[in-house]
Amino acid sequence: MARIVIALGGNALGNTPAEQRERLDEAAPSLIGLIKQGHEIIVSHGNGPQVGMIKLGLDTAAEINDKVASFPLPECTALSQGYIGFHLQNAILRELRKEKMPWYVATVITQMEVDKNDPAFQNPTKPIGAFYTEEEAKRLMAENPGRVYREDAGRGWRQMVASPKPLDIVERESILNLLDHEFIVIACGGGGIPVVKDADGDYSGVDAVIDKDFASAKLAELVGADYLFILTAVDRVCINFGRPDQKELMEMSVDEAREYAAQGQFAPGSMLPKVEAAISFAESGAGRRAVIASLEKAPLAMKGESGTAIYSK
Amino acid sequence: MARIVIALGGNALGNTPAEQRERLDEAAPSLIGLIKQGHEIIVSHGNGPQVGMIKLGLDTAAEINDKVASFPLPECTALSQGYIGFHLQNAILRELRKEKMPWYVATVITQMEVDKNDPAFQNPTKPIGAFYTEEEAKRLMAENPGRVYREDAGRGWRQMVASPKPLDIVERESILNLLDHEFIVIACGGGGIPVVKDADGDYSGVDAVIDKDFASAKLAELVGADYLFILTAVDRVCINFGRPDQKELMEMSVDEAREYAAQGQFAPGSMLPKVEAAISFAESGAGRRAVIASLEKAPLAMKGESGTAIYSK
Repeated sequence: MARIVIALGGNALGNTPAEQRERLDEAAPSLIGLIKQGHEIIVSHGNGPQVGMIKLGLDTAAEINDKVASFPLPECTALSQGYIGFHLQNAILRELRKEKMPWYVATVITQMEVDKNDPAFQNPTKPIGAFYTEEEAKRLMAENPGRVYREDAGRGWRQMVASPKPLDIVERESILNLLDHEFIVIACGGGGIPVVKDADGDYSGVDAVIDKDFASAKLAELVGADYLFILTAVDRVCINFGRPDQKELMEMSVDEAREYAAQGQFAPGSMLPKVEAAISFAESGAGRRAVIASLEKAPLAMKGESGTAIYSK
Repeated sequence: MARIVIALGGNALGNTPAEQRERLDEAAPSLIGLIKQGHEIIVSHGNGPQVGMIKLGLDTAAEINDKVASFPLPECTALSQGYIGFHLQNAILRELRKEKMPWYVATVITQMEVDKNDPAFQNPTKPIGAFYTEEEAKRLMAENPGRVYREDAGRGWRQMVASPKPLDIVERESILNLLDHEFIVIACGGGGIPVVKDADGDYSGVDAVIDKDFASAKLAELVGADYLFILTAVDRVCINFGRPDQKELMEMSVDEAREYAAQGQFAPGSMLPKVEAAISFAESGAGRRAVIASLEKAPLAMKGESGTAIYSK
């Protein structure tokens, strides 16, 4: 039996509550497929589109209605963990019931400690919220000094916020306790609520969104997982992507992965952070493997029949 | 050692993220005071003002910005559980650190099963969101057919939604598992996300807000608690409230409580549901006591020096 951390992309969750319920219902059989193979799973998820929409919504309303407060980013991630966890745990429960599997599911509100001196705070790179045209984005930047919008992996313009590296999970013991008693745990939603520790040892939220793949790698490391599954829209990592000599990779060592990354094979903000997170987990302990695969083929990837495995020698 | 479920009022949490952080920091010493007395605590909380603000905010934004989706009520309660849990667990962690107490805290996203035929769905009585003047409320009702606003306990007009009775906690096992390993658990936020079970046994959200006192009584019953503490703004339950012969009660039997309720001693939507929830818990098992007390004096109430104890003979 292996312990597997599964990272779901926020972009795969749709843009409305109804869409999210549907997408998660579709995703559940794959997740439960890994349990049927005899493994233990911990599910984390992104929240880029969701946290952006929640923040945009509440801020927009706060401007025109004094009965609505504006919500800082860490609070918006906390909101999104409740919202996505609710749908995700129900989708998993439904699939468990269908398969007559007596497991329990719990969503744990998770805070992730970051370093307040992380250089990321000087250079916002994490896309959140809706996609805009270049023209709309430039107008929004002019209207909101301090906010940064940039082109996001060919999909449109989005707001960019600081994305510091995850250091430690405040609720690690809670997660471990549930795991050790055979619960399916949903944790580190949206990369975790970013918090910094002050001189006294107290936590407070900071304006940032932690990359969900790095957070999932940290989660996998801290719960002693054997596998980190980073699920995405493609079956395998490719090199020479979109060219006649495009090649799907069945596996790559961390050295090969670094070499490909240095060649610019992986799109920043898209495949690159996934590969970097995979490297970080594969190097965090002996025998640990990261797998980048498509959501539908996760159980196949576990058998080595799909996905790209990243391993450290 | 006693197991105590503590119900905090949503109205005590303030109206903005900054206010909420402050109020919860002020509340934490009282909660930890109960642990210092040797007890185990589970914290639940209301979300009336918060869920109302979140729903109002997202709905307002959705009307004018097509990048924001409208959120149904159960999703808004899920959002509020993440938001309030984040601040509440940090406030508790801060106080634990100060007192050098090595406990852990976990917020569990909680769904509460209700009956889809509950008569409450025909008669909305649960106030949510901001307070309005009578004139504003009447305008809002005219503009939004189907929505109900009513006067709320002398404090202004508020939107009213269905408040069905809580039947069972979907995440009961997760909560029990954490409790049994000495975690402080935050659960059933906002009364829990209201869900109904369909013929297949699957859960889905319904448009309602469960009263947090009834939900806390159900939580206390299901986790086998010895005490249910319903914390509010007054030190003790009073009879003849606001009259020259006003009298603070140190304790009352469930029979006396019922008699006072029948006399109209307790304000509907305010003290009445607290007393009813207290009765329901006190009658749920031998030796169970409910205590209605002020937040600051909870540890004193545990020693019998404040609050009103409700017991079944």
